[in-house]
Amino acid sequence: MKKFTVKPNPDDESLFETISAIDHAGDEVITYVIQEKPISLYLNNQEIVTLMTIGDYLEELSIGYLVNQGMLCEKDTIMGIDYEEDINTIVVRTDKKTNYEEKLKKKIQTSGCAQGTTFGDIMDNFDKINLRKDIFIKIKWIFSLIKLINTCPSLYLKTGAIHGCVLCDQDTPIIYMEDVGRHNAIDKITGYCRINNISTHDKIFYTTGRLTSEMIIKCVKMNIPILISRSGFTAWGVNLAREAGLTLIGRARGSRYIVLSGSERIIND
Amino acid sequence: MKKFTVKPNPDDESLFETISAIDHAGDEVITYVIQEKPISLYLNNQEIVTLMTIGDYLEELSIGYLVNQGMLCEKDTIMGIDYEEDINTIVVRTDKKTNYEEKLKKKIQTSGCAQGTTFGDIMDNFDKINLRKDIFIKIKWIFSLIKLINTCPSLYLKTGAIHGCVLCDQDTPIIYMEDVGRHNAIDKITGYCRINNISTHDKIFYTTGRLTSEMIIKCVKMNIPILISRSGFTAWGVNLAREAGLTLIGRARGSRYIVLSGSERIIND
Repeated sequence: MKKFTVKPNPDDESLFETISAIDHAGDEVITYVIQEKPISLYLNNQEIVTLMTIGDYLEELSIGYLVNQGMLCEKDTIMGIDYEEDINTIVVRTDKKTNYEEKLKKKIQTSGCAQGTTFGDIMDNFDKINLRKDIFIKIKWIFSLIKLINTCPSLYLKTGAIHGCVLCDQDTPIIYMEDVGRHNAIDKITGYCRINNISTHDKIFYTTGRLTSEMIIKCVKMNIPILISRSGFTAWGVNLAREAGLTLIGRARGSRYIVLSGSERIIND
Repeated sequence: MKKFTVKPNPDDESLFETISAIDHAGDEVITYVIQEKPISLYLNNQEIVTLMTIGDYLEELSIGYLVNQGMLCEKDTIMGIDYEEDINTIVVRTDKKTNYEEKLKKKIQTSGCAQGTTFGDIMDNFDKINLRKDIFIKIKWIFSLIKLINTCPSLYLKTGAIHGCVLCDQDTPIIYMEDVGRHNAIDKITGYCRINNISTHDKIFYTTGRLTSEMIIKCVKMNIPILISRSGFTAWGVNLAREAGLTLIGRARGSRYIVLSGSERIIND
């Protein structure tokens, strides 16, 4: 795939508003502000969640959310995705009822909390995943990826208040998604890969977000062996990465970074 | 109340781990990493949510979460809060079944999603709130609050990867809470104020987090008239702030900031 097959579109006026504000000196200034819209996601006739999103790549976001929550498996066939713009609703249709709809219904009736039970599900099979040991990253790739991503025109550079995730192949950033929602950007990449049959097993993942437990779990469940973030990390995130053998690179800015786990995949060449 | 009645405790070793890592030069470095633990919250015998938290001020967090989600009203009397450390569970007990338990049960059975319906509830009565117009902030207070908060020893300065919120009275920061969870820090302040009968109607709120719709809604529902953030903002957040007449100050760093809404409360003195 070529460099930035998917990249942010800071010229898409549906994604931001132009507003006037007042700065510290009392002067009027024009500023760009990112959009944030609620989208209700249905899996067949089951309402799943309301996502707050900038509103681009809605199909990829929906599919990626369902895959990452374990609600859509490899064997499920997607028959259609319908977006009803007037009621901010997106419906993903599968060929047959997924297991998850039954599971969700049952769990809700017993435990009463989708958020809580979802977290239980997301850890399923975590310890059975074997990340590829033959994938590596050269130190110079880390620096060049950071530079390419940070200088790519983006909504982040235009409006701020947004997260970005980039799927990379060796030293090439290929799929760059952004969103206000902390996990939407990664879900969009998952969805894009599912729809376009792109394997993530040999890729490198870059994110602007913190390396919390949820981010590590999502990355491992996508079978990605190397994760880079410009931000920090939590103790549980580091412990999960070490358990899974994930290469975890944090606080990656300019020519600096810190490796928390899986340093054997980093080579000085 | 005196300056920093509540402040972060970066010396509390239960809140972080000390781990060894490798830096960009290949040298071993010791780094501090913030904790992140799941806590299941029950309201009487109803499981509500699993919160990811650093684990301090759990009572304040639980009460604040329930108040901000509209699950605990002013008239509800809290009879007890039980923390079961071995199973990471906290149970808030009220004198009688709250309305919310019935509502939650019913909504879950019909719509199938706690996250989605919660968002509907959080907007209830938003347009009926009148923020005080006689509260103001001097420009020099903005700068001194930023300086006091940023130089106060904190887990942020020690470990990074954490958000902070501070309730301020004029030029004095009084309650400073931190957490990995995006909204836990604000919920802890809400809970602290509820438990200690502190009015928020005349206060100023500072946060490190982005000014998204949820942050604006929580602040307005706490009747706080002035909100300052070191980060950016979303379009919906700005629109909600303007609708509610909230003074919204964003990108506040050093001696710079930008006012998006309610500039009439800012005085140059």
